[in-house]
Amino acid sequence: MGAYLTILGYNSAIPTIRSSPTAQLLEMSERYFLIDCGEGTQVQLRKAKAKFSKINHIFISHLHGDHCFGLPGLIASLRLLGRTQDLYVYGPKGIKKMLETIFSITETQRGFKVVYYELDGIGSECIYEDNKLEVWTIPLDHRIYCNGYLFKEKQKDRRLNIAEIEKYTEIDTCDYHKLKRGEDFILSDGYTLKNEILTNDPEPPVSYAFCSDTRYKENIIPIIQEVDVLYHEATFLHDLKEMADYTGHTTAQEAAIIARNANVKKLILGHFSNRYTDLNVFIDEARKYFPNTYLPISLEPIKI
Amino acid sequence: MGAYLTILGYNSAIPTIRSSPTAQLLEMSERYFLIDCGEGTQVQLRKAKAKFSKINHIFISHLHGDHCFGLPGLIASLRLLGRTQDLYVYGPKGIKKMLETIFSITETQRGFKVVYYELDGIGSECIYEDNKLEVWTIPLDHRIYCNGYLFKEKQKDRRLNIAEIEKYTEIDTCDYHKLKRGEDFILSDGYTLKNEILTNDPEPPVSYAFCSDTRYKENIIPIIQEVDVLYHEATFLHDLKEMADYTGHTTAQEAAIIARNANVKKLILGHFSNRYTDLNVFIDEARKYFPNTYLPISLEPIKI
Repeated sequence: MGAYLTILGYNSAIPTIRSSPTAQLLEMSERYFLIDCGEGTQVQLRKAKAKFSKINHIFISHLHGDHCFGLPGLIASLRLLGRTQDLYVYGPKGIKKMLETIFSITETQRGFKVVYYELDGIGSECIYEDNKLEVWTIPLDHRIYCNGYLFKEKQKDRRLNIAEIEKYTEIDTCDYHKLKRGEDFILSDGYTLKNEILTNDPEPPVSYAFCSDTRYKENIIPIIQEVDVLYHEATFLHDLKEMADYTGHTTAQEAAIIARNANVKKLILGHFSNRYTDLNVFIDEARKYFPNTYLPISLEPIKI
Repeated sequence: MGAYLTILGYNSAIPTIRSSPTAQLLEMSERYFLIDCGEGTQVQLRKAKAKFSKINHIFISHLHGDHCFGLPGLIASLRLLGRTQDLYVYGPKGIKKMLETIFSITETQRGFKVVYYELDGIGSECIYEDNKLEVWTIPLDHRIYCNGYLFKEKQKDRRLNIAEIEKYTEIDTCDYHKLKRGEDFILSDGYTLKNEILTNDPEPPVSYAFCSDTRYKENIIPIIQEVDVLYHEATFLHDLKEMADYTGHTTAQEAAIIARNANVKKLILGHFSNRYTDLNVFIDEARKYFPNTYLPISLEPIKI
């Protein structure tokens, strides 16, 4: 159990030997979400020993190649592997035309259906919900239409205190779901057992926000307020602030200020320009503003 | 000098950790040709320390993803790297629509021009020629329209025998190009110096044939006759001949028979199905029919 984030690639623009372009696998409440899918993502998933077949939802931030050029290959491979279940793809308007043109010309349309959820909204909206969690868009400010994504678990069930429950033979396993929901139990003699006696507090729900690519944008702060982990792009250091603005990117200092003002628990930086060889300079700059900042580590699952 | 083939990937269908999908870099007569471009090719080119900028011609055999899904990313990266020179892309009809749809939606159309040479012919045709070499299509038989490619150097210049030439002060460096072309030299006293005295035989021209993906197809034998190196797909061993026919592929035995009947000098196999873990079984089967058969080695240049 628990939520785990596996960073599959965090390079900007051009893939290198150092790292693949952007892609992340988020395991949350037993769902597997793929976030962005740069070229080579399917091989990174193999290296991470991830179960391809469990991914049912893919969220694409924007239609620049370093965030989506791995999609055609991944989907073609899922088809070759015999998948039959529908695959849901969320991304900017245009993603359907691009992928379906590719699948038509490369004759890879057989097998399962790709269900597209094309985005063009300008406000944050809930685009996925089930009984365990929600996914919201985080409108970003890049050179091209772009959304980050907020994944947040719903309040979880209370945990049964079995040792206490077994003292009362009247409580049947059929009653457990009510107890998990927080209800009290009334004994046949009319005595009320308070729920707090029979259960423990649930695991706190966790949340993860993915923000790439974007200029420094304060409007996202209310949306990502107090998330457990924030991944925020930091393509440049702050001495290249002008370049960051021009190209639609953020500096390490700015990403840290966003994290601080949103009161998040942990910040992971990524999407570094290839001009930097020692990535520790990003940590040095960001920690002045937000100490709990980390570099991404490819293929190592991080507990959220 | 000389011709070198660098195999960047030789996997079939689904990329794995073992090998990338099909892509090769051919250096011949100081030209750099990229042959097929499966997903991840640009990173393989980096690993091979190849100079991206020198590639001016890309030849795509067919529009299955494992042979072309690396193209959008490679071209986008060349644009980000500031290339201005035209890039020539040869491939089946449809390649232009696919790539231009991608470039339009991902807003990666700036910079240099991609010049498309779309193929739909059914006979072998010369699609590239300069003063040093020619490239011909090799019509193949796959599930989708597919061509192999034959690269052959033209007759090279004769090599100057400087020690001999310097005995005759009348011969100026301006005369060298005529000597290289095989002309005799007439001294002012009317005496004819035979060209064979002043020059040595040229390096023999070399040739390379790339054949993937295809069913066993004897018609290609006259086209690839006596090439120095033949790369031929061998997706299956011969016990799966039926599967090979059904999926449009060749067995190792069949590839070796093609090599033997075409009297090629060397055969390299590739495009192995992922069901095989020890690839030596392909060599064992093929060498019974054509002893000079080899497995591909990723990223190691082979002299042709």
